[in-house]
Amino acid sequence: MRALIFDVFGTCVDWRTSIAEAAEAYGLPAEVADAWRAQYQPQLETVRDGSRPWVNLDVLHRIGLDIVLRDLGVDLPDRDRVELTRAWHRLRPWPDVVGGLTELKTNQIIAPCSNGHIAQSVNLAKYAGLPWDAILGAEIAHAYKPDPEVYLASVHALGLEPHEVCMVAAHNGDLLAAQAVGLRTAFVPRPAEHGPGQTTDLAPEDDYDLVVTDFWQLADRI
Amino acid sequence: MRALIFDVFGTCVDWRTSIAEAAEAYGLPAEVADAWRAQYQPQLETVRDGSRPWVNLDVLHRIGLDIVLRDLGVDLPDRDRVELTRAWHRLRPWPDVVGGLTELKTNQIIAPCSNGHIAQSVNLAKYAGLPWDAILGAEIAHAYKPDPEVYLASVHALGLEPHEVCMVAAHNGDLLAAQAVGLRTAFVPRPAEHGPGQTTDLAPEDDYDLVVTDFWQLADRI
Repeated sequence: MRALIFDVFGTCVDWRTSIAEAAEAYGLPAEVADAWRAQYQPQLETVRDGSRPWVNLDVLHRIGLDIVLRDLGVDLPDRDRVELTRAWHRLRPWPDVVGGLTELKTNQIIAPCSNGHIAQSVNLAKYAGLPWDAILGAEIAHAYKPDPEVYLASVHALGLEPHEVCMVAAHNGDLLAAQAVGLRTAFVPRPAEHGPGQTTDLAPEDDYDLVVTDFWQLADRI
Repeated sequence: MRALIFDVFGTCVDWRTSIAEAAEAYGLPAEVADAWRAQYQPQLETVRDGSRPWVNLDVLHRIGLDIVLRDLGVDLPDRDRVELTRAWHRLRPWPDVVGGLTELKTNQIIAPCSNGHIAQSVNLAKYAGLPWDAILGAEIAHAYKPDPEVYLASVHALGLEPHEVCMVAAHNGDLLAAQAVGLRTAFVPRPAEHGPGQTTDLAPEDDYDLVVTDFWQLADRI
């Protein structure tokens, strides 16, 4: 193994708490976070199914926000919508992430393989202290996970073969897609990602190379 | 200013000493370093002039090495040529670089804007301890500096405008090209890059935003 690439939203950072707080700062209910995230896969799908050319996640997040606000019957000035969309560049990491990544970085290349674009990933890394060696993922592939091209573009950008790279995620769908194109896989459960009562991705649903409790244990096991 | 992007070969790292030592490890004369680097611009030019599709710098370095060894009348096995080409992934930084970049990184986004590809840039950063926030440059543009597209692709990947980004280099040609598309510019002389008797790039040849002696002074002035 030469490199680990990471899902970010949910796996590295607690988007739900961070976005709820950002929404509340604009006088919106905290529930906006879940409603906004519910627009995530449908908006990505418009790129994956070819009905929209590749655009970055700021664009897709803004489209999702407009739908959420329309459904809520809330009017928010354009300037505030632009700013609120930028809240996805400032999300707090889970408590084990910065320490675990720092430890992993001593012997491995570490990089995000996120659906976030380069600017969002860089801004998030600066905010959250994520010590990436490079920024990979959707933008270098001009595709969105779980499109296999995203994983393969990230692997090839590092000059490596899929079996030399481990995909780390809290989501079974992400790991299954990476595994299908030959990457190694590590599952890290994030049972609080969706708040109390989360029912999905509580346990591994396939035979991954590693199943760990957090990034500290991941660093110990690598 | 929000970000600084850096030339790497010569500006951040002492390629000449490092490559001379790598060549000597294969029983080749130290002069191979200069002869090999003399193949650099001609090989980049084959991509810039469209006579060759974009290929990464490992490919162009290998073509240059084959020419140098042919001219020397030296036979080296293919395996050794592959390994020696990888010496460009392991180059020592100038003494001010790691400290200066670490200081700059506290308040700015820092990234290479090099003709090296992502894998080479990541491996070099791991070897030399360059604490980049992202890896930008030739590969994301599929072009080679001083093609303006390389600077602009790096700026746009960060979600910034050219005037928000400063190009840092020890080479006037690089800075003039960045300046022409609206970036800010900082000149850091590296009078030992080409060894004793260097005659080029000893002084700024235009009106740059900053002229500093080294990366420590750059950090102080930003």
